[in-house]
Amino acid sequence: MTTKAIHSNAAGHEAGIGLVQEQVITFDHSFNLVSGKALAGFQLAFETYGSLNAEKSNAVLICHALNASHHVAGQRTDTPADIGWWDNMVGPGKPVDTNVFFVIGVNNLGSCFGSTGPTSLNPLTGEPYGGDFPVVTVEDWVHAQAQLADALGIKRFAAVMGGSLGGMQAMQWAISYPKRLAHAVVIASTPRLSAQNIAFNEVARRAIITDPDFCDGHFYKENKIPKRGLAVARMIGHITYLSDDDMAQKFGRSLRKREDYSYDFGVDFEIESYLRYQGEKFSSYFDANSYLLITKALDYFDPSLKTQGNLAHAFARVESEFLVVSFSTDWRFPPERSHEIVTALMQNNRRVVYAEIDAPHGHDAFLMDDPKYHELVRHYFQRVAHAIR
Amino acid sequence: MTTKAIHSNAAGHEAGIGLVQEQVITFDHSFNLVSGKALAGFQLAFETYGSLNAEKSNAVLICHALNASHHVAGQRTDTPADIGWWDNMVGPGKPVDTNVFFVIGVNNLGSCFGSTGPTSLNPLTGEPYGGDFPVVTVEDWVHAQAQLADALGIKRFAAVMGGSLGGMQAMQWAISYPKRLAHAVVIASTPRLSAQNIAFNEVARRAIITDPDFCDGHFYKENKIPKRGLAVARMIGHITYLSDDDMAQKFGRSLRKREDYSYDFGVDFEIESYLRYQGEKFSSYFDANSYLLITKALDYFDPSLKTQGNLAHAFARVESEFLVVSFSTDWRFPPERSHEIVTALMQNNRRVVYAEIDAPHGHDAFLMDDPKYHELVRHYFQRVAHAIR
Repeated sequence: MTTKAIHSNAAGHEAGIGLVQEQVITFDHSFNLVSGKALAGFQLAFETYGSLNAEKSNAVLICHALNASHHVAGQRTDTPADIGWWDNMVGPGKPVDTNVFFVIGVNNLGSCFGSTGPTSLNPLTGEPYGGDFPVVTVEDWVHAQAQLADALGIKRFAAVMGGSLGGMQAMQWAISYPKRLAHAVVIASTPRLSAQNIAFNEVARRAIITDPDFCDGHFYKENKIPKRGLAVARMIGHITYLSDDDMAQKFGRSLRKREDYSYDFGVDFEIESYLRYQGEKFSSYFDANSYLLITKALDYFDPSLKTQGNLAHAFARVESEFLVVSFSTDWRFPPERSHEIVTALMQNNRRVVYAEIDAPHGHDAFLMDDPKYHELVRHYFQRVAHAIR
Repeated sequence: MTTKAIHSNAAGHEAGIGLVQEQVITFDHSFNLVSGKALAGFQLAFETYGSLNAEKSNAVLICHALNASHHVAGQRTDTPADIGWWDNMVGPGKPVDTNVFFVIGVNNLGSCFGSTGPTSLNPLTGEPYGGDFPVVTVEDWVHAQAQLADALGIKRFAAVMGGSLGGMQAMQWAISYPKRLAHAVVIASTPRLSAQNIAFNEVARRAIITDPDFCDGHFYKENKIPKRGLAVARMIGHITYLSDDDMAQKFGRSLRKREDYSYDFGVDFEIESYLRYQGEKFSSYFDANSYLLITKALDYFDPSLKTQGNLAHAFARVESEFLVVSFSTDWRFPPERSHEIVTALMQNNRRVVYAEIDAPHGHDAFLMDDPKYHELVRHYFQRVAHAIR
């Protein structure tokens, strides 16, 4: 195991995290996956914010969702315009206060931002894994994250936190390593995808897989990118991240730079322009194989699979306290899904704080700067801080 | 104008419509479209059920939605397994009783089941229109349907009826030809698509247009079919036709012929298998250009566009009575959209019967055999029948 540049950034205590540097840790040993396959070795890209205390008790792990990365907060030294995806949540004086906590963002296996994934070289072939990268699960991610924690000397996290798919990782931590976290913070998440959730993922995957430029996942060596499929996949995703009302408010039936309909298949409505832009932007930076892998990890996540569908039984070994947050207009993972989590935890007499935030922004609300939501997280982390002293 | 085989089918008074024969009517004159373009001539495929009375006052026009056709009820003589799409609604003794009414189903311009559309020969080139077929609107369809009514000697319909996009046509009839219908029956419809509705249509169109086999709509002469894009488009549509709960009930997280996850990108879940099947089936019979045209007609429909967004003003000239029906779990065109129609009609002092049917099947409920729903329509049509005598 080797690490590069493990040091925390101390700049910018006034106005946010400031400049941060990506770090990479390499593990040379074999890593067994839930699928039965194994990786001969792997690396994880991560960032840290704040300082680890002497007792190493103030660490908070932030887990990312589908398309995000380990770049949670601050600005990259090489690309200062690239602000971390949860910069409004994590930083000095922010809800997850880096004056108090040592926060870690880590890129997951199978993703495309520096951790081992489909674009990495397959040691067996010397070429990128491409379509041969093994299917990974939320459990696999959590096990890999635990190895990073070991390397950093962190025996127990003050909290593991995430939104959406990130919330699934926080739940999985509480199940797989009950003694290694004091708090799990699960935001806009679900204990398992619904048939409708899986359906949307499957359509997105079909759009990618049936793009002729996908080449069974080996498009890198063909010098191709399945941009059309990726763009369609992202457009589908985007619709599910926003609420119907929010879309109506933001776009409605407004025409895009026109007075009348075009009577062709160009852009008529603002919403069309927005979705096309989002699709094209995404297809220029995200890896198609990673999209398939991560949507599959979403589909597969179901802690109750081993307990005959009983989520309370799946949580039986959990020791951490929980903060569970849902958003009123999130139709992707609606409040009812969070209720299932809360109910199953209460059946195990676990301490849970639950809040449904009345917010108009649908699933994406977990990334937004909502005062009620942020105050809730701030207060919860004051409790977390209390416990580490 | 020439007509072929205009005669009604009289068979099967006991057990449904029985065998029916498709009819085709050809109009040789130019037909101006809302877009400003024109068709040099056109034909309409249609079917009729029951008998037109001597006064020609008992005709009911049934308008189809996205992927349906003029084959509303009964069995085709050439393909007896092919039952009409609203056979549970239309027939002897059924809610729309063909012992009383003369029912007409007509395929719309731009569709792909016998009326003039993208697969028809463009008289200017002698080749199929393909991507050159002009964009058509709900208004255009209604004007074409009115020409069919003229040809059949029907001055005034007892009712014009449709579900979803078919309901839009019924509304447009009431606006464009207020004196030519006594009743408009608008089921599971909306006065205009929401941004989210348009978004889903746009993603479906992008899937088709970016399929390399689409060839800018001229795939016929390349001997190609953009099946991949069409399948993805249909899968997206299907998700929006079913309710979340219905999907959960029917499919849940059930695995497809497996005990455990596959850990690959084949089919794991039943819902994946279902959607793939639906997508592939659809792409084998539906025309890609028609899909684009009809989704565009959906997006464009907005009677209030000419009245500064005021739907009541758009309905100002309406004379017909209305039955408006919505379904509780329809999230594509939810009950609130029907409320807008009802409110605007009431503001014009029109007679409206409105019902929200509590049904689990989402948007597709309008096609289902629901006793409450069918009894409602049956009773309403008894009122319609009363008026024609």
